[in-house]
Amino acid sequence: MGEFALIEEIRQRCNVPRPDVTLGIGDDAALLQPRAGNELAVSMDTLVAGVHFPATTAPFDLGWKALAVNLSDLAAMGAEPAWATLALTLPSPDADWLARFCEGFAALARAHELALVGGDTTRGPLSITLTVQGFVPRGAALRRDGARAGDRIVVSGHLGEAAAGLSLLLGTDAPRGLGDADREHLLQRLNRPHPRLALGLALRGIASAAIDISDGLHQDLGHIAARSGLAARIHADCLPRSDTLARAGDVLQCLRWQLAGGDDYELCCAVPPDRMAQALAAAARCGVPLTDIGAFEPGSQVRVIGRGGDEIAVGYGGWEHFSACT
Amino acid sequence: MGEFALIEEIRQRCNVPRPDVTLGIGDDAALLQPRAGNELAVSMDTLVAGVHFPATTAPFDLGWKALAVNLSDLAAMGAEPAWATLALTLPSPDADWLARFCEGFAALARAHELALVGGDTTRGPLSITLTVQGFVPRGAALRRDGARAGDRIVVSGHLGEAAAGLSLLLGTDAPRGLGDADREHLLQRLNRPHPRLALGLALRGIASAAIDISDGLHQDLGHIAARSGLAARIHADCLPRSDTLARAGDVLQCLRWQLAGGDDYELCCAVPPDRMAQALAAAARCGVPLTDIGAFEPGSQVRVIGRGGDEIAVGYGGWEHFSACT
Repeated sequence: MGEFALIEEIRQRCNVPRPDVTLGIGDDAALLQPRAGNELAVSMDTLVAGVHFPATTAPFDLGWKALAVNLSDLAAMGAEPAWATLALTLPSPDADWLARFCEGFAALARAHELALVGGDTTRGPLSITLTVQGFVPRGAALRRDGARAGDRIVVSGHLGEAAAGLSLLLGTDAPRGLGDADREHLLQRLNRPHPRLALGLALRGIASAAIDISDGLHQDLGHIAARSGLAARIHADCLPRSDTLARAGDVLQCLRWQLAGGDDYELCCAVPPDRMAQALAAAARCGVPLTDIGAFEPGSQVRVIGRGGDEIAVGYGGWEHFSACT
Repeated sequence: MGEFALIEEIRQRCNVPRPDVTLGIGDDAALLQPRAGNELAVSMDTLVAGVHFPATTAPFDLGWKALAVNLSDLAAMGAEPAWATLALTLPSPDADWLARFCEGFAALARAHELALVGGDTTRGPLSITLTVQGFVPRGAALRRDGARAGDRIVVSGHLGEAAAGLSLLLGTDAPRGLGDADREHLLQRLNRPHPRLALGLALRGIASAAIDISDGLHQDLGHIAARSGLAARIHADCLPRSDTLARAGDVLQCLRWQLAGGDDYELCCAVPPDRMAQALAAAARCGVPLTDIGAFEPGSQVRVIGRGGDEIAVGYGGWEHFSACT
């Protein structure tokens, strides 16, 4: 399978027509028509085999996830997806692998009317880089630096399930006694995250800051705090925990997955107290749970508070327990 | 060197301020202001160690070249560069390597007022992916599909020097008896290509089609021919050959480098005969030689004609000699 056959295969399988694409795959560059009155939100993420995903990951899931993690960044800006370019590096072109990769990519792209407009295919160690672009009305984007002291901290969905899925896959801290349905659910959360695009749009004009949770709540919430010049205080007991997660580990293990697990692709937002009702209503319209987990306050760092009111220390790149939260 | 230190280092070293960047490196996505009345030209290219460049390539040259090959695509569209995002995958973060890589990138970015607005840094086998974006007035882009029968075929600069430089580096078909200045010139052409951005802008409204020569003239000219539904006939004797190249190999070896060598990053354009004077004047104003090497005609494929009028056959991925052109 030569480079041009490969590109043609991708073009055909990932085709999502959009009227704002003047020229798509097949020239030196794509030609695109930005939306008047809007800013462009542009994000780029790479997934490397053996680093960001196990080499055994199914190609459908890879195509889906590579796009999902990028769209999650647009969701966190409150942007509406429009276009993507794909740089695909493959050890050897395999028509079957490529077809299934494209299926996964296209399934999510179609759901969000995103057009793949260009990219590059190269030979080398398996890695996937995407650049995604979306529209946001000028001045309306959700940024990391907009939180104010007193703003509530909210998170969408449930945390820690993808991390539990990874533990399951790698056999580390393996959840025991889980039924097939639970195991499948956790693996789906790991391999096919659903970017919270509708919620991101719905929270424009309501949230004062936002980030998507890709590296674990503790670290990502820390970015909002740092960029906004604030401290964040969250309550361990308030972190949204699914029934499946509760069955997968004890409370401490769950807390570890929820705080430092990564791969959640949920949104973490700052919401002024007088807009909380609006935020909850907006999330309800999107069919997404939104949970109040704490507040921003003057200072710096993220503090996690246990049931007894004591602080639980979370170390960099890991997690350290000072005071039991049960 | 952690990921955040790495990103901060890149941000500081590659900073080129632009008023149309609302938000650069450091959030979930960059926020950018497209230019009214313009389309966006978007291109993405990956360089993989050991595939697109020898592992010994200096980091300054890598930073320069990764940007140059992407800007060359914008040049071929007649687009004016604005923004880039960088996905950098490194086996291990090395502060010194990174500083020199950024120097090379920034030197070229500053020359073209291009802002690095975001990207991703990951651990893995060395590879560099860039997405570049530029502006082109609506409907004015140079595309591959606009050539008409009778249009002249022109190329900028000299061909084959980068390929000769690579031969020099790899010791294959090694040019013999070259002086230090010649050797240095050929290596510079390989490692620090100058994208023909000014020429691309100057040829808007004059050229009917364009492509940048990255994979060798024969193959890239073939893309214009195929997309325009035409044949291309070029004359081996007319291909621009520098004195340095002439000293590096015999006529046949030079022809091989010029037709199939790759890494030239010159422009190949279609120009209607009655606009040739305009095209030559535009190139002269840019200080770039522009050479008439043949014409488009009805049919398909690219035909290379030797001195005696016989056709020289160039096989896919290589080069086959039927009739000597000297």
